[in-house]
Amino acid sequence: MTAVAKTVIVGVGLIGASLAAAGRRSGVLGRVVGVGRSKANLETALRAGFIDEASSDPAAAVRDAGLVVIAAPVDTSIELLERVAPACPASCVLTDVGSVKAPIVRAAERIGIAARFVGAHPMAGGTRTGAAAADEGLYRGRTVVITPTPNVAKDAHDLVSSMWRSVGAEIVELDPDLHDQAVAMSSHLPQMLATALAALVAGDPLHDLVARLTGAGFRDTTRIAMSDADMWVAITEANRTHLLAAIDLFTRLWARVRDAVADADEEALRSLMLEAGAFRRGLERGRS
Amino acid sequence: MTAVAKTVIVGVGLIGASLAAAGRRSGVLGRVVGVGRSKANLETALRAGFIDEASSDPAAAVRDAGLVVIAAPVDTSIELLERVAPACPASCVLTDVGSVKAPIVRAAERIGIAARFVGAHPMAGGTRTGAAAADEGLYRGRTVVITPTPNVAKDAHDLVSSMWRSVGAEIVELDPDLHDQAVAMSSHLPQMLATALAALVAGDPLHDLVARLTGAGFRDTTRIAMSDADMWVAITEANRTHLLAAIDLFTRLWARVRDAVADADEEALRSLMLEAGAFRRGLERGRS
Repeated sequence: MTAVAKTVIVGVGLIGASLAAAGRRSGVLGRVVGVGRSKANLETALRAGFIDEASSDPAAAVRDAGLVVIAAPVDTSIELLERVAPACPASCVLTDVGSVKAPIVRAAERIGIAARFVGAHPMAGGTRTGAAAADEGLYRGRTVVITPTPNVAKDAHDLVSSMWRSVGAEIVELDPDLHDQAVAMSSHLPQMLATALAALVAGDPLHDLVARLTGAGFRDTTRIAMSDADMWVAITEANRTHLLAAIDLFTRLWARVRDAVADADEEALRSLMLEAGAFRRGLERGRS
Repeated sequence: MTAVAKTVIVGVGLIGASLAAAGRRSGVLGRVVGVGRSKANLETALRAGFIDEASSDPAAAVRDAGLVVIAAPVDTSIELLERVAPACPASCVLTDVGSVKAPIVRAAERIGIAARFVGAHPMAGGTRTGAAAADEGLYRGRTVVITPTPNVAKDAHDLVSSMWRSVGAEIVELDPDLHDQAVAMSSHLPQMLATALAALVAGDPLHDLVARLTGAGFRDTTRIAMSDADMWVAITEANRTHLLAAIDLFTRLWARVRDAVADADEEALRSLMLEAGAFRRGLERGRS
C-alpha cells in the first residue's frame, strides 16, 4: 500500500536516489519528485527510473507534497528546511537523512514544524556519490536512526518509520543529542583517524616506499580516507562538540598505547589488544 | 625445476603452510618437512598435502636441508635460528618471514651465518591463523621484501628470490633497518590505531549503542584489531624504536586534526582530507 501520494526528495545523491528507488519499489512511496541543482544528475535519476519528475525549485515542488525528504549535505540541510517548510501543506511530513541530528531538530523547532519533522540518519553510504551510484538495496538490513522528539505527531512518526521499514531498514529511535554523541565515536572519530593516518603517510619523506609496503591492514584502516572532503568538513563542523570530546578520549587512550610501547609493557598491550579484539569480533557476529 | 631438494619450514602456520603448499606446487621446493609444536596443526598440514613430513625437532630436521625457512612468531624466530643454524649443512640457505628484519639479520651476523641468511617479509597474512587457513595462492601478486646484506652469498640471495618469485610474489630489496622504519608506518602504526579505536569504544559507557551505530567505516577501520594479540605484542617489542617514532609522528598530526576541528578551520581540514584521499586513491589504482 502506498503510504504517501507525492514525495519530494531534495537532493538526489546516493542516499536520496537510493531511497527514491527503494521506496517506489516497495510501494510505500507513490509519485516521487527529485529536486537538485545538477541537471545531469537529475537526468541520470530520471533515466534510471528512480524518480518520476525532476525539479530545480524546492519551494515549488513541495507545494502539494505529503512527504519531504531533505537528502542534502549537512551544511545545507537546515537552510533547505527553512526554505521548503513554509511552502509545504500543513499536513506535510518532513524528514532528513543527515549524519548529525541535534542541529536540524533544533532548527525544525525554531521554524515551528516540531510536530511534523522527524530527523533520520540511515547508516549507509559509501565512497561513491551521486544518483549514478544509487542502489535500491542500499538500506536492506541497515540501521536507520530516527530522532523523534516528544513534540512529533504520531502520523509523522509513523510515516517516517514505515518508509524506512519498507525499504528493509532496522529502526533505532534515539534522542538527537545522544545520537550525535554516539556517531561521533562510531563514525566521525574513525573518519578523522583514517584521514590522519593517510595524510601522515602521504606527507612522509618515505611515502613511496611506505605505499609499496602497505597491505590489506593499511588499506582497510584508511579506506574511508577516500570519502568526500566537503561532506566531512560539514559533518565535523555540525558535530564539533561531540567530535572534540571523542578526539580527546582517543588522545588519552593513544597516550596509554604509546606508554605501553615505550615501556615494553607487554601486559598492558596484550590486554588492550584482547579487549579491542573481543569487541571487534562481537561486531562481526552481529553482522548477518 | 626444483631449486632445492629438501626444505625445512619451522612453523607451519598460515604463512609457513601457504609457502610450503605454493612452493611445492610451483616446483621450486622439492621435499618439504614441516616443524612445529602442535601435533594437530602438523596433522592438518600433512593431510592437506602442504608438507611431505612432520617433525617436532628442528635441529634433527635440518641436518640434510638445502633451505630452512623460519616461519615462527617474531619473538621466537631468533632463538630458533640460534638452535638450527649449527645443525645445518654448511651449504644450507636460511631465511625467515618475520615482520621485523633488523634484529634477526643482526642475529644471523652474530651467529656467523651472514653469508647464508637472507631475511624476508611477505606482505601477506590475515586475521586467520594456522595451517587450516593456508592458501597456496596467498602470495600471488603480493610484495615480499627481502633484506640481503652485502655479506650474503649470491646463491643464497638467488635461492630466496627465486622461491618467492615462483609463488607469484613481487620482490622488493631493502636495507633491514629501512624496511623496519617503513613497516612501522605502513603496518605497525595502523595496527596500533585500529586497536586503540576498538579498545576506546569497547571501554566507553555507550559501547552497546555505539556498536549498533557502526557502519562499514568503523568496521573497516578496526578490522585488524582482530589480529592475534601475542603476535602483535612481539612485533611492537621487536620494532619498538621505529614504532615509537611513527606513534610520535601520528600524535603530532592528530593534534593538528584536533586544532582544526576545535577552531572550525575548514581549510585545514579540507586540505588534510584532500591530501589523505589522493594518497589513498593512489593505493587503490596501484592494486591490480
